[in-house]
Amino acid sequence: MTYLDHAAATPLSDRARYAMEPFLSEQFFNPSSPFIQGKDTRDAYNTAKQTIGTSIGAKGSNIVITASATESNNLAFTCLEAGAQILISPIEHPSVYRVAEARGNLEYMAVDEHGRVSLDDIKQKITPELEFISLALANHELGTIQPISEIAALVRTERLRRLEAGEKRQLILHTDASAALNTLQISVARLGVDLMTFSSAKIYGPKGVAALYVSPEVRLKPLIVGGGQENGLISGTENVPGVIGFSVAIKDAQEHAPAEAKRLTKLKQILVNEFPAIDFKHQLSSHVPLIFDGLDAERLIYLLEDRDVLVTTGAACSASKGQKSNVLTAINLTDNQIAGSLRLTLGRLNDESSIREATAIIKEVVSMEKKRVEG
Amino acid sequence: MTYLDHAAATPLSDRARYAMEPFLSEQFFNPSSPFIQGKDTRDAYNTAKQTIGTSIGAKGSNIVITASATESNNLAFTCLEAGAQILISPIEHPSVYRVAEARGNLEYMAVDEHGRVSLDDIKQKITPELEFISLALANHELGTIQPISEIAALVRTERLRRLEAGEKRQLILHTDASAALNTLQISVARLGVDLMTFSSAKIYGPKGVAALYVSPEVRLKPLIVGGGQENGLISGTENVPGVIGFSVAIKDAQEHAPAEAKRLTKLKQILVNEFPAIDFKHQLSSHVPLIFDGLDAERLIYLLEDRDVLVTTGAACSASKGQKSNVLTAINLTDNQIAGSLRLTLGRLNDESSIREATAIIKEVVSMEKKRVEG
Repeated sequence: MTYLDHAAATPLSDRARYAMEPFLSEQFFNPSSPFIQGKDTRDAYNTAKQTIGTSIGAKGSNIVITASATESNNLAFTCLEAGAQILISPIEHPSVYRVAEARGNLEYMAVDEHGRVSLDDIKQKITPELEFISLALANHELGTIQPISEIAALVRTERLRRLEAGEKRQLILHTDASAALNTLQISVARLGVDLMTFSSAKIYGPKGVAALYVSPEVRLKPLIVGGGQENGLISGTENVPGVIGFSVAIKDAQEHAPAEAKRLTKLKQILVNEFPAIDFKHQLSSHVPLIFDGLDAERLIYLLEDRDVLVTTGAACSASKGQKSNVLTAINLTDNQIAGSLRLTLGRLNDESSIREATAIIKEVVSMEKKRVEG
Repeated sequence: MTYLDHAAATPLSDRARYAMEPFLSEQFFNPSSPFIQGKDTRDAYNTAKQTIGTSIGAKGSNIVITASATESNNLAFTCLEAGAQILISPIEHPSVYRVAEARGNLEYMAVDEHGRVSLDDIKQKITPELEFISLALANHELGTIQPISEIAALVRTERLRRLEAGEKRQLILHTDASAALNTLQISVARLGVDLMTFSSAKIYGPKGVAALYVSPEVRLKPLIVGGGQENGLISGTENVPGVIGFSVAIKDAQEHAPAEAKRLTKLKQILVNEFPAIDFKHQLSSHVPLIFDGLDAERLIYLLEDRDVLVTTGAACSASKGQKSNVLTAINLTDNQIAGSLRLTLGRLNDESSIREATAIIKEVVSMEKKRVEG
């Protein structure tokens, strides 16, 4: 099997699993239990949060643990009152654009044919009314890497202007970095963001656990109320094994990100040399969006599956519902191009020989399909 | 070590862990991925939800997976518009009373000295304006079992009256059954509830996963928006291993509940024979609330911890913040009684010899403390 859907799911790494194991059995305690075993569990939990924080250049106290990147994105928007002015890109994940739609008045950034935003456009759209900008660090379908730190500079300038003008309105920058952590080394300080979403399941950590980085200046409102865990923002008994596994996974992912990016770039090159890819310089090394204009991507998926090559059409959650991708529409692909689009995402389950083999298989299948369609 | 805090946390059972393992590594796929491995994962997920449903007498399609019992409780209240009339007991868990406070106008049931509600009182409080009743099936601190099916009958009568009178207002009955699943066999149909919260972490399943049973008549609103998972109510990539483990845990817990209740009743009797317990007939066999009037429960916890007997003062999440329990206040204990209250909760880590040994240790420690206080 050649698995080319790492952006949808990754297997749990052995290191993360071993780290979690004691917390499933011997050290299963509730971190709020008053005896020493509870306190030790609390310490382990806090240390894991510290590790998660350090991995992205933050403190453990700036990390809020959630159950999914989607929940992190939902939490990020709680700093807004209903009707706030929000700026997002037209290629965000549903967990951003759906919550944005529910929370405020939406304005959209322009994106080019690679899905990349323009700083001039954003500069114009940072009006005195604007309260919130959300833009994924790297797009989940295309892998397009956005100029987040440059946008952060624009945000700082506007904040300074508001401060000097005595305007009290907040302006907050949020990024979803979920797709980027395996191949980009990330520092929230260097990025200059106020809020950052990231997830364990996409970096060979356990499923069901994710996080939101929250800068000390941002005031969020509780999303889930109850016992007051996670600074009162996400109540519920802590998922200790999940957070332990997450901490190991993110430390590994971030330490090895440069090497992994280098390795995946080579693998990607093998595919890009053969197929019509949306390839350009600001793109994750893990992401290989391919366009087979005139072919039916659904058929390709099933034919490739028969040959043990696993690919998808786009974000798994949209793909399963047969929806037309908002991302591919926004970058002005034709309906035919969209219908023939595949998303290949590379990762640890791939090596050079498997990618060479998969490339040959894709070539064969695509050529057969072309003949079928044309003939 | 004698662990007497099963209501706060339980270790993962071997059976649940073995069932989860393939879904951590080989079958790690996203259930929304379009290839057969994704679909097989979706099938396994749906089968697990079906098992969870069947265990409580429901269908898989009536089960919404959440990340915690707290999230389930928060989700339950989304069927209400702001300002709705709500009836809860004064001994609910914070995850119920805090969301209730945020959502509507609260009325409280009366409870007796055991924390048990009165049907006459509830009947009076089911006014034409009432929209929602939430009452834990068994109280998390006291173990008090409530007459839920009798309350459901009152609810049905009122619904019929509204129907005949042409009144459109809904009346919904929610119960949090989290504390009860190890020792009571539960059927949502027999209970007659519309919404029921239950959790994996309290029944020797994995942490970070729970559920809400939702009757087909109830219309909830999304709590977490995004890719539309869990019927659009809780978006986010599914925690497949978590749900697989949960399904095994709940099946085991429900199958063995009568035997476990019988076993724990014997163990409980050993403790209740020796100590001043809040013991009465409508109480879970797992729960042993003890009152040492005039002693300091915090000191008892630490002295017992030194002797490897692990107990707590109440719900872990409140205990860790040194708050006075709303439960013990509501059943009219004096401040001295509250200050001397311990919560012992029994479970699979206990057997007769360990409970006899722990009983002797508690006797010794309590007697030493009494001497210290009196002398």
